[in-house]
Amino acid sequence: MTAKNNAFFVNSDRLWSDLEQLGQIGRDPRGRGVSRLAFTPEDVAGRRWLLARMREAGLKAWMDGVGNVFGRYEPTDVGEREVTDCGSAKVACRETKGRERESAVNVDHSGTTPDSSVRDNPDAKYPAIMLGSHIDTVPEGGRFDGTVGVLGALECVRTLIESGAILKHSIEVAAFANEEGSRIGHGTLGSRSFVQGLLREGSSQDEVAGLAQVLEQAGISGDPRRLKDGELACYLELHIEQGGVLDASGEDIGVVTGIVGIRSFTAKFLGMANHAGTTPMNMRKDALLAAARFILDVPEFVSELGSGSSVGTCGRISVLPGGQNVIPGEAEVSAEVRDVDNDVSERIILALREHAAAIAQERDVQVSVSPASAILAVPLDEQIQGDIEAAADELNLRSRRMPSGAAHDCMHLAGLVPSGMVFVPSRKGISHSPDEWTEREQCAAGANVLLKTVLRLDARLDVRLD
Amino acid sequence: MTAKNNAFFVNSDRLWSDLEQLGQIGRDPRGRGVSRLAFTPEDVAGRRWLLARMREAGLKAWMDGVGNVFGRYEPTDVGEREVTDCGSAKVACRETKGRERESAVNVDHSGTTPDSSVRDNPDAKYPAIMLGSHIDTVPEGGRFDGTVGVLGALECVRTLIESGAILKHSIEVAAFANEEGSRIGHGTLGSRSFVQGLLREGSSQDEVAGLAQVLEQAGISGDPRRLKDGELACYLELHIEQGGVLDASGEDIGVVTGIVGIRSFTAKFLGMANHAGTTPMNMRKDALLAAARFILDVPEFVSELGSGSSVGTCGRISVLPGGQNVIPGEAEVSAEVRDVDNDVSERIILALREHAAAIAQERDVQVSVSPASAILAVPLDEQIQGDIEAAADELNLRSRRMPSGAAHDCMHLAGLVPSGMVFVPSRKGISHSPDEWTEREQCAAGANVLLKTVLRLDARLDVRLD
Repeated sequence: MTAKNNAFFVNSDRLWSDLEQLGQIGRDPRGRGVSRLAFTPEDVAGRRWLLARMREAGLKAWMDGVGNVFGRYEPTDVGEREVTDCGSAKVACRETKGRERESAVNVDHSGTTPDSSVRDNPDAKYPAIMLGSHIDTVPEGGRFDGTVGVLGALECVRTLIESGAILKHSIEVAAFANEEGSRIGHGTLGSRSFVQGLLREGSSQDEVAGLAQVLEQAGISGDPRRLKDGELACYLELHIEQGGVLDASGEDIGVVTGIVGIRSFTAKFLGMANHAGTTPMNMRKDALLAAARFILDVPEFVSELGSGSSVGTCGRISVLPGGQNVIPGEAEVSAEVRDVDNDVSERIILALREHAAAIAQERDVQVSVSPASAILAVPLDEQIQGDIEAAADELNLRSRRMPSGAAHDCMHLAGLVPSGMVFVPSRKGISHSPDEWTEREQCAAGANVLLKTVLRLDARLDVRLD
Repeated sequence: MTAKNNAFFVNSDRLWSDLEQLGQIGRDPRGRGVSRLAFTPEDVAGRRWLLARMREAGLKAWMDGVGNVFGRYEPTDVGEREVTDCGSAKVACRETKGRERESAVNVDHSGTTPDSSVRDNPDAKYPAIMLGSHIDTVPEGGRFDGTVGVLGALECVRTLIESGAILKHSIEVAAFANEEGSRIGHGTLGSRSFVQGLLREGSSQDEVAGLAQVLEQAGISGDPRRLKDGELACYLELHIEQGGVLDASGEDIGVVTGIVGIRSFTAKFLGMANHAGTTPMNMRKDALLAAARFILDVPEFVSELGSGSSVGTCGRISVLPGGQNVIPGEAEVSAEVRDVDNDVSERIILALREHAAAIAQERDVQVSVSPASAILAVPLDEQIQGDIEAAADELNLRSRRMPSGAAHDCMHLAGLVPSGMVFVPSRKGISHSPDEWTEREQCAAGANVLLKTVLRLDARLDVRLD
């Protein structure tokens, strides 16, 4: 199996070349990063480029009515598999000659028009394994956020095809639309549409009309694809960390334990605006002093009550009247806490709310605290975490389990199918910036972990389609 | 002298009535205070009302080319004075029948047109004592700020006239224009014009043109009056405290030691904006945390290094990017320190600048501190402070020496002539607000202190005109 086994590593040059090519689309000529905001001509050009790459690789590829791009690799000859040892996973392989091998799958070169007929494979006996992320960007973003997950997934499938691996499950590559929400909506639109339907209850007519117009202008038509019950065996997403933990520790792979929940509130301290010259220090009710005390204490509360990976942030502050020579009468601060454990973030946020009231009392000001809003944490599948960890071990990569502090398409999928995420390092933790960077070898390592995890999942999962 | 001496108390009802009448001009019908912003029709109406009151009282009154209103009481028969004991001061008095007395001064009822000829009295042997303040207001202001000083001064002169007091010095009442600077310019425009000339070096052509247009629209023409060398013996200003010291202590009178100087700077802390979810607490460079530490420490530095009446304020703060879910990369804070002793405020501000740098170093962020701007403190005449204190004692009023934390017209006069200020309490320290309030008896007490101080100064000062 040694010779065959070599074929199970992705081609890091080809992956890097893909990242560079897609990074040219929407690239700022002055060096200010890449801008492929959802549904702009640049974004659509990127999607058409991806469709072409998928089809070149032998995937059945199409774009749905909300801009999601899907590419499907369907194993053939599933009846005549031979089980071979591929590392620790058991995988069916055929003799292969790499790229030169004639593709066993039906290659569709008929353009980019959505064609829903390519989706259904009446012969499939197992649900599909989906590998996805997004390729839209923030304004002046980088070329790794999302993209490394989609192109890494594509590279996995290319490697599987070339290796002649025979899998039980189909593999789907998904590039969800408008993950960033930089131009319209709230982000993760494509994956929400896929999981929940395009528009949830509560969407206003304005939103519906606005989105319809944007999609029409982008030339995107047809029905959005909606996930069917039992259609997917699991979902995997490779992504850059967008934080500095791996970069600082020198570890290669983050095994994501879950997407953190976010609890937040706004504390408005109300003192008494007054003349900064005529009001003695001991007669002041300075709202900003109360706010400053609160802001400084947030990290202390997070440290004392948190899980170790809990974070707390005051990102916004505004004072009134806001004149240099006027004692602030009002100071409004935002506070948010994130943890992958909802109980932990709840505990911290409750303590912070009480603390804001205590500070106000101590400083003889008032405080009005908004109701805490909550986005619940999304835990990821524990068995898949084990699979990812084992895949990293197999590749002699150092990994750590860690939460994702940012939202990802994965969090919508995770509610319906067993899901996992693989992080690769972000240099200095920078993302959403032209300075976003992940090394070629780090991208390849992530794609290899994705590949090895797919092989493990294909072997382990055994739920058949009805 | 007892009967005559009674005449030397102001008529508190008349003063209160004047305050109420002037408070009707520009009054908001919904109860939102008084708005007589400089050079608006309301302000001009107030000035014309004042000119009429001055003339009714027997003063030579006029408005100069920048809107300053002056009213002059010139003692007559200065050759045939009889010195009489009025409390502790020696004052010349004639027999009088109060209001019914026929005025010995020339009453000018010829309208409000500026007439510079009324200013010169070729027979005057002593320079004038000027009592002044302002009657313009901030938007939605109160009816005591400035006004109590002008109408209190007018009431003093009325009392002197009715009492038949014969003084060595002429008394001038001044209502300086645009003290507040709420509509145009930087405030104290009228007194600056009077002392320094209308436009100092450095005034831009835009400022000149803007002011000229505003004055023309207000119907104010002619030359601005410019203080001549030796023309004034001294300047006194009665004003509400605009702070809460007297109101809290229950004292009646503030004897102002000086106008505090203001030193200020802006500290811009520069950290690293980053994702509030993906950046662990120990990898952050949160500019707002550094700013909050600085803000909280300002009162400590003022307390440790200050004079007891020093004040320090952070009135402005802004953060970038300012999103709830982004760690602030930049936080800019204003800091100002005031004290009547320039050395004290200098000491505090230097320590705060060093402290900002120390905080930045400790928290691994950068800080960029603007050059400290300085408005120097203006000490007031020590002998006049003694006169005011003695006048208050004579009236059995409790007084305290205290700095003025706010700027006043007095600070410009004080550079050229011996000057003093008398404070009366502001309820709860509130000013520049419809809630600004000083009781009838407190206003009268201030005017009486002004009156008794004038008598003392008239007796004590003995510089003759050349």
